[in-house]
Amino acid sequence: MRLWLCRRLDRLDAALVELIATLLDRVEADGRTVIPGYTHLQRGQPILLGHHLLAHAWAFSRDRERLAGARDRADRCPLGACAMAGTGHPIDRDRTAELLGFAAVLDNAMDAVAARDHLQEAAAACAILQTNLSRLAEETVLWSSTELGLVRLGDAHATGSSIMPQKRNPDAAELVRGKTGRVLGDLQALLVMVKGLPMAYNRDLQEERAPLVDCLVQTTDSVRLTAAMWRHAEINHDRFEAELYGDPALATELADALVERGVPFREAHEAVGRMVRWCEQHGGGLELLDGGQGRRVHDALPEHLGELLDPRAAAERRTSRGGTAWVEVERQVRVLRELISTLRGPGR
Amino acid sequence: MRLWLCRRLDRLDAALVELIATLLDRVEADGRTVIPGYTHLQRGQPILLGHHLLAHAWAFSRDRERLAGARDRADRCPLGACAMAGTGHPIDRDRTAELLGFAAVLDNAMDAVAARDHLQEAAAACAILQTNLSRLAEETVLWSSTELGLVRLGDAHATGSSIMPQKRNPDAAELVRGKTGRVLGDLQALLVMVKGLPMAYNRDLQEERAPLVDCLVQTTDSVRLTAAMWRHAEINHDRFEAELYGDPALATELADALVERGVPFREAHEAVGRMVRWCEQHGGGLELLDGGQGRRVHDALPEHLGELLDPRAAAERRTSRGGTAWVEVERQVRVLRELISTLRGPGR
Amino acid sequence: MRLWLCRRLDRLDAALVELIATLLDRVEADGRTVIPGYTHLQRGQPILLGHHLLAHAWAFSRDRERLAGARDRADRCPLGACAMAGTGHPIDRDRTAELLGFAAVLDNAMDAVAARDHLQEAAAACAILQTNLSRLAEETVLWSSTELGLVRLGDAHATGSSIMPQKRNPDAAELVRGKTGRVLGDLQALLVMVKGLPMAYNRDLQEERAPLVDCLVQTTDSVRLTAAMWRHAEINHDRFEAELYGDPALATELADALVERGVPFREAHEAVGRMVRWCEQHGGGLELLDGGQGRRVHDALPEHLGELLDPRAAAERRTSRGGTAWVEVERQVRVLRELISTLRGPGR
Amino acid sequence: MRLWLCRRLDRLDAALVELIATLLDRVEADGRTVIPGYTHLQRGQPILLGHHLLAHAWAFSRDRERLAGARDRADRCPLGACAMAGTGHPIDRDRTAELLGFAAVLDNAMDAVAARDHLQEAAAACAILQTNLSRLAEETVLWSSTELGLVRLGDAHATGSSIMPQKRNPDAAELVRGKTGRVLGDLQALLVMVKGLPMAYNRDLQEERAPLVDCLVQTTDSVRLTAAMWRHAEINHDRFEAELYGDPALATELADALVERGVPFREAHEAVGRMVRWCEQHGGGLELLDGGQGRRVHDALPEHLGELLDPRAAAERRTSRGGTAWVEVERQVRVLRELISTLRGPGR
Repeated sequence: MRLWLCRRLDRLDAALVELIATLLDRVEADGRTVIPGYTHLQRGQPILLGHHLLAHAWAFSRDRERLAGARDRADRCPLGACAMAGTGHPIDRDRTAELLGFAAVLDNAMDAVAARDHLQEAAAACAILQTNLSRLAEETVLWSSTELGLVRLGDAHATGSSIMPQKRNPDAAELVRGKTGRVLGDLQALLVMVKGLPMAYNRDLQEERAPLVDCLVQTTDSVRLTAAMWRHAEINHDRFEAELYGDPALATELADALVERGVPFREAHEAVGRMVRWCEQHGGGLELLDGGQGRRVHDALPEHLGELLDPRAAAERRTSRGGTAWVEVERQVRVLRELISTLRGPGR
Repeated sequence: MRLWLCRRLDRLDAALVELIATLLDRVEADGRTVIPGYTHLQRGQPILLGHHLLAHAWAFSRDRERLAGARDRADRCPLGACAMAGTGHPIDRDRTAELLGFAAVLDNAMDAVAARDHLQEAAAACAILQTNLSRLAEETVLWSSTELGLVRLGDAHATGSSIMPQKRNPDAAELVRGKTGRVLGDLQALLVMVKGLPMAYNRDLQEERAPLVDCLVQTTDSVRLTAAMWRHAEINHDRFEAELYGDPALATELADALVERGVPFREAHEAVGRMVRWCEQHGGGLELLDGGQGRRVHDALPEHLGELLDPRAAAERRTSRGGTAWVEVERQVRVLRELISTLRGPGR
Repeated sequence: MRLWLCRRLDRLDAALVELIATLLDRVEADGRTVIPGYTHLQRGQPILLGHHLLAHAWAFSRDRERLAGARDRADRCPLGACAMAGTGHPIDRDRTAELLGFAAVLDNAMDAVAARDHLQEAAAACAILQTNLSRLAEETVLWSSTELGLVRLGDAHATGSSIMPQKRNPDAAELVRGKTGRVLGDLQALLVMVKGLPMAYNRDLQEERAPLVDCLVQTTDSVRLTAAMWRHAEINHDRFEAELYGDPALATELADALVERGVPFREAHEAVGRMVRWCEQHGGGLELLDGGQGRRVHDALPEHLGELLDPRAAAERRTSRGGTAWVEVERQVRVLRELISTLRGPGR
Repeated sequence: MRLWLCRRLDRLDAALVELIATLLDRVEADGRTVIPGYTHLQRGQPILLGHHLLAHAWAFSRDRERLAGARDRADRCPLGACAMAGTGHPIDRDRTAELLGFAAVLDNAMDAVAARDHLQEAAAACAILQTNLSRLAEETVLWSSTELGLVRLGDAHATGSSIMPQKRNPDAAELVRGKTGRVLGDLQALLVMVKGLPMAYNRDLQEERAPLVDCLVQTTDSVRLTAAMWRHAEINHDRFEAELYGDPALATELADALVERGVPFREAHEAVGRMVRWCEQHGGGLELLDGGQGRRVHDALPEHLGELLDPRAAAERRTSRGGTAWVEVERQVRVLRELISTLRGPGR
């Protein structure tokens, strides 16, 4: 079981590397696309798609660390523990462990027979990974909707209808999201099974096979499906950039500009908030201030707001470490490429 | 939240160190006591109590590794991520992280805002630890029963009745076992909450406080309660040793002895099995063979089985790495003492 | 505990009645609004908002049935069971149950002490209800987004920002969705706690208080919050109707019309599918067929498709039992009004 | 799916009836056996085995009520709902439901497509049932141990070893206890899957098949295995009765006798408690008071305590409704026989 688990965890890690690589390719190819960054599913600030996809890549990178930890605990040899008491026969447990390719030996014979925390840890790492996948899946569903219209999945990952060819149900993303339920259930099964069991072996533990296998299969499938889906998805680059010009989400740009010009923070915010409301009452966004009306907001602003209302310029201004500016996106791609090329969890 | 979590994980780790130290003290003080080792709650082989307690100590030692991994993921600074896009203000995120005492910086601003996998991982480590605790708790309840009668809990950890002063309800152990349910529930709460959430912040995440706090409080309390309970428990050293003399569980000793004398494995097992059945039919165990009846089992056995029917001798014969012999118990105590003195998870 | 639970379940039932009544009011006030019905978050068919809200009302009505079942099992009196064996004192358990207001007596004294399935059942009913609530919450979040823009929550149920007054974070809906995690965790806690416990009382059971109380409090709060949120939400009636005119989602209308005119099903579907693709290639929907181009699709269609491309007409055509036509919506409102006025679960 | 679920729930109900009938047979055959009733796994009061087994039978009887509720919700016909909006074709949904054998029609078409609460409810009823089964399984394991030695499982439900023929691992009971983990996981899967899903159909729901089927299969197998195990188990009638003579657990009998003779409750308890401690110090139980030493406890007691120290007499004194006296056990058997012959859940 431990050898099987190590192999399956390696396979899952390889799938994750592939998924991260796919996202990084995607970032390099389509990452400059301007989209709204959401909080509460409300438009917050304009960002680059690359910045957004990297957030998922970083989470998956941490999932690899967790899987490596689980693998470390699994990679310990129980052989020679016998029923629970060890043996009087002259067996060299270090040697048998080495021959089987284990990294270490489980010292105590009773522990070697009874321990199941390595299975639980592997399942927990899968469950956390799966909730991370479910977030990208949810966004894939949202972005594939008529209303958001940012992503068009490939034919293999969406189904339509003969009569409604425009309909592209994001089945692959929904399946990944749905499998999250199964994997969370599998983890719970493995935790509950062990609860209250005395040492050493109890037949209850035979029931752990099904949820453990299901957990690793579903998670690995989900990772691969997500990678394939994003490898073949098309991005509608023009969906948001023009629409976001002058979007109220850019109000913070104006306020920041005022603050940089020496206007007190509170005054800046009040002035801009007033202006956003005025624009809203006039049926539009801040683009209504185009044509030299910057002074309407505040004397300290230039007449022509131009760049201040431009979502791409707003995104590119955020150059702090991990900010949405392209230069930071590119830097992170390099860091993550390095991580997937050299790291296989801590201590490897 | 991350700083709070690191502190709480440190506190939990300290409690675990205390628990392991308590078990090691117990092993040194009472570890030579002979008890039946169980599988399926059936008597399997005679073992030393020290061997048994060490099985738990090793599991708790792995729990520390998991908690250290969770702490590693928590110890990364989100400051400066702002709403999700980072900032254009000249902020040095590495410096602020350093000033706050973080070990690292979360690179991507959106990830820094949205990630909750560090909370889930901490809760998962707690849940696994709690199932480990529940096993020791179950055994404490069993060993405190009239029928097994190995352990007598201290007054602070058991309740009685004025009229039945002999009754000692193992409340502390039962509470630890019961808290396992809560902690498993807390973990599920934290996993479910994140399922299907789009980036970046969503108000759902506010609901994570209660289960996260409950999870860490209940687990830390359970560890401390288990340590205190075992520090003050009394062991009934004489409960099992005499009773196990000639116990059918020693049949394997006879078979092993035959094999060592060159009898084929199958023949040895058949001969011994036949004898055990004969003893059973005569209302006893293998002690019926005392008084020079070893030859009844097999010609290759000595007339006086003496030591072969002695449970302590059987335990002491198992000297392979991690076996139940006292020399191995003592060695493991040294290894574990070293681990709790120097290690604080991998990479520290 | 049982009396407390009955009271809390009654309170939760009253909150559910209030929620259903709120939805029915909403249906009567705003139910004629035309919206897209989604599957896979893709636009499927035009429906009435009333039809959609009633789907939730029916689910909540079944939740009431489940809560009534849980209450029925809780409403049985354990008094007089003593420690587990009953009593020799001349106590009339039927009389004490009646005096306490219980509907029935738990017959077996050991069962009366040990049973916790009534708590688990109440928590399960809450968990199922909460997943139902989470679906309406998810839709509330979606409908509150800029892109879907159907719902505007009241000030008490959304938060904004001083500088982005247009931003209305649907906090109330997100909290309800988030609380789902907690309640699912509470249910698991109550199930896990009981797993593997022997009869009769064990101290583990003391730990059931916290998750049980949390479960009922969070669920009741969620129901009330959902009711309040929907009582004060504003519907943007004009959001979708014009946009859906000629939407490809109406392709089935054309196909149905052809079938009614005697065209074989397969032929009708092929003809319409071809036409939708043609419109798509010309950058539009079926409204491109306006102005007397019905024959382009198929000879059997009228020149002026008019009503066939109209989403409201499409919705109103579906008059089968439970269909989206207003007449059916109104009928269901009457049925549900009747249910909340007279029924309190089965058997009452 | 709904028709399949109804059939499976009927099959599970039939298995439960069989299990309850088996327990009732067992009660009639072996129910007079005196055993210790435990709380906290400490001996509390002497009871009849029949009283104990009936506690489980009552719990399973409530499980049947829950399954009937779940079946009621499942037995409603979605046919004719089409994609979510119903149909304009002249379809009589009541007639199709009747032809398919459904008891009712799901009124709202969108609800009919999207609702999954009937699956969740069935799984919740299974999960609760499974925790009930796990308690009997735990006791079966305990009672099969050398130390408790009350039950000897049949060959088909226990495994031994060629060399240790006395070893009877209670595999069947352990498997039932272990399957509890799986079923709790399946329930969690079905709850999590639905969390946050908008209307109407989403492909996530395809993932519900595996956990739903597993849930019903594992639970039905567990019920049948438990019934078979108890049908073929042997009871060691003499295990406890003699050992319990004078057991400190009988202290309450003496105290009750004093109270009946007019001694104040507090005085009675103090007198008896003092005596129990005295006996304990002299290495025995209350049987040390035999031979006319009743007055040592209290003047109001008869010299010859005889019957007051007899566990069977103590059990038989508890004749209140649901008490452990045989007359009450017999009455409950009649009530439960009636229930399994006529009732199939409420409303049938």
